[in-house]
Amino acid sequence: MELNRIKTVAFDADDTLWANEHIFQEARENSYALVKDFVSREDWAKATFDMEIHNLSLYGYGVKSYVLSLIEAALKISGGKIPQYLIGKMLEIGKDMLNHPVKLLPDVKETLETLSGNYKLFMITKGELLEQEGKIKRSGVAELFSNIEIVSEKDEKTYSNLLDKYAIPRNEFMMVGNSLKSDVLPVCKIGGHGIHIPYHVTWEWEVPKNREEEVSYIELERINMIPELLK
Amino acid sequence: MELNRIKTVAFDADDTLWANEHIFQEARENSYALVKDFVSREDWAKATFDMEIHNLSLYGYGVKSYVLSLIEAALKISGGKIPQYLIGKMLEIGKDMLNHPVKLLPDVKETLETLSGNYKLFMITKGELLEQEGKIKRSGVAELFSNIEIVSEKDEKTYSNLLDKYAIPRNEFMMVGNSLKSDVLPVCKIGGHGIHIPYHVTWEWEVPKNREEEVSYIELERINMIPELLK
Repeated sequence: MELNRIKTVAFDADDTLWANEHIFQEARENSYALVKDFVSREDWAKATFDMEIHNLSLYGYGVKSYVLSLIEAALKISGGKIPQYLIGKMLEIGKDMLNHPVKLLPDVKETLETLSGNYKLFMITKGELLEQEGKIKRSGVAELFSNIEIVSEKDEKTYSNLLDKYAIPRNEFMMVGNSLKSDVLPVCKIGGHGIHIPYHVTWEWEVPKNREEEVSYIELERINMIPELLK
Repeated sequence: MELNRIKTVAFDADDTLWANEHIFQEARENSYALVKDFVSREDWAKATFDMEIHNLSLYGYGVKSYVLSLIEAALKISGGKIPQYLIGKMLEIGKDMLNHPVKLLPDVKETLETLSGNYKLFMITKGELLEQEGKIKRSGVAELFSNIEIVSEKDEKTYSNLLDKYAIPRNEFMMVGNSLKSDVLPVCKIGGHGIHIPYHVTWEWEVPKNREEEVSYIELERINMIPELLK
């Protein structure tokens, strides 16, 4: 791989720059406490995941979509018997998620500061506009990026369109993220470089179904290994 | 006004290019049918509007935000007594809204086609990413625009940032829309040209509280008057 050609380094945000999935894990746990009279933990986990995926093409990603699916799953699984005040509690869970403080992962700030001297830095994050904008603002690192892109899906087409829009040659582009499915594989497939930095938890939906072996990518343990890798 | 300098004509989308507010009006009507045992029509209108505005900074615009506020308002106004299956009906109202066909307003397609030969056309719409993308795709006019921007709020800062991003001089920019508050006044205030094309219904929130008289804008009855205006 010709990493010395790279001029633009793009970062995923949720669970790459700051912790996010644990907020959803907490919410799943808290929502289970509300429905435990009606359903087992396993069945609730399956019911909410299935509902989220069922609604994904209509609702998209993000907290509001999650809460709407939560309410729908609770109505369905309780046969419409879930007490009304517990639906109110689900709305509160969502508001707490949206207000959650943004905590940068270790070494993120220092790594971005180091890289920003030599590379053009992009942030490419998927989700809802206002929700992601809020986290970006609260993160305190927005000004280190030359471009911040919020997209509704991260696939080969999204990355191709972005690179075309900014006239970035594909072999000069590197994308760093915790999701093989959204951050790494699609970038590798269109001729860019993908760096995978695993996070300790991954949402089931972000785990690629068929691990494709024909693309090659680099896996790093920590984000602060990137400057050394690019030297 | 030196309209002969204009090189970029930007359009709002909802209720400027296609009908949208009537979908919310229908939904308000349909939601009232669900809660009418608990509240008068006027009180329900006020309760949902107040809840939407209360949640606006956290939820933003769009259908999902609207449905979450609808459920919260119904729980509140019924003292938690709204039957659960009616909450399920509110989720259905939201899904119907998201699946609603996009109907272009009269003369829109022809006007855009005429203008696209001589001007750079932008679409600038506020709301949620996936929701607005879906409507843009279904509208069938996306390819007539050189740039489509989906933003979370339309104020002076938003327009300034966009014009800076594309290096567009302010006096060469014209914005067309049905909302004085979001489309016309902020553009005029930063030195661009604003064209107001009123739609027969306006969401209460989009009506400017204090009509400011110091900015001047053009009001047109129909979108097909724009090419003649620019001649």
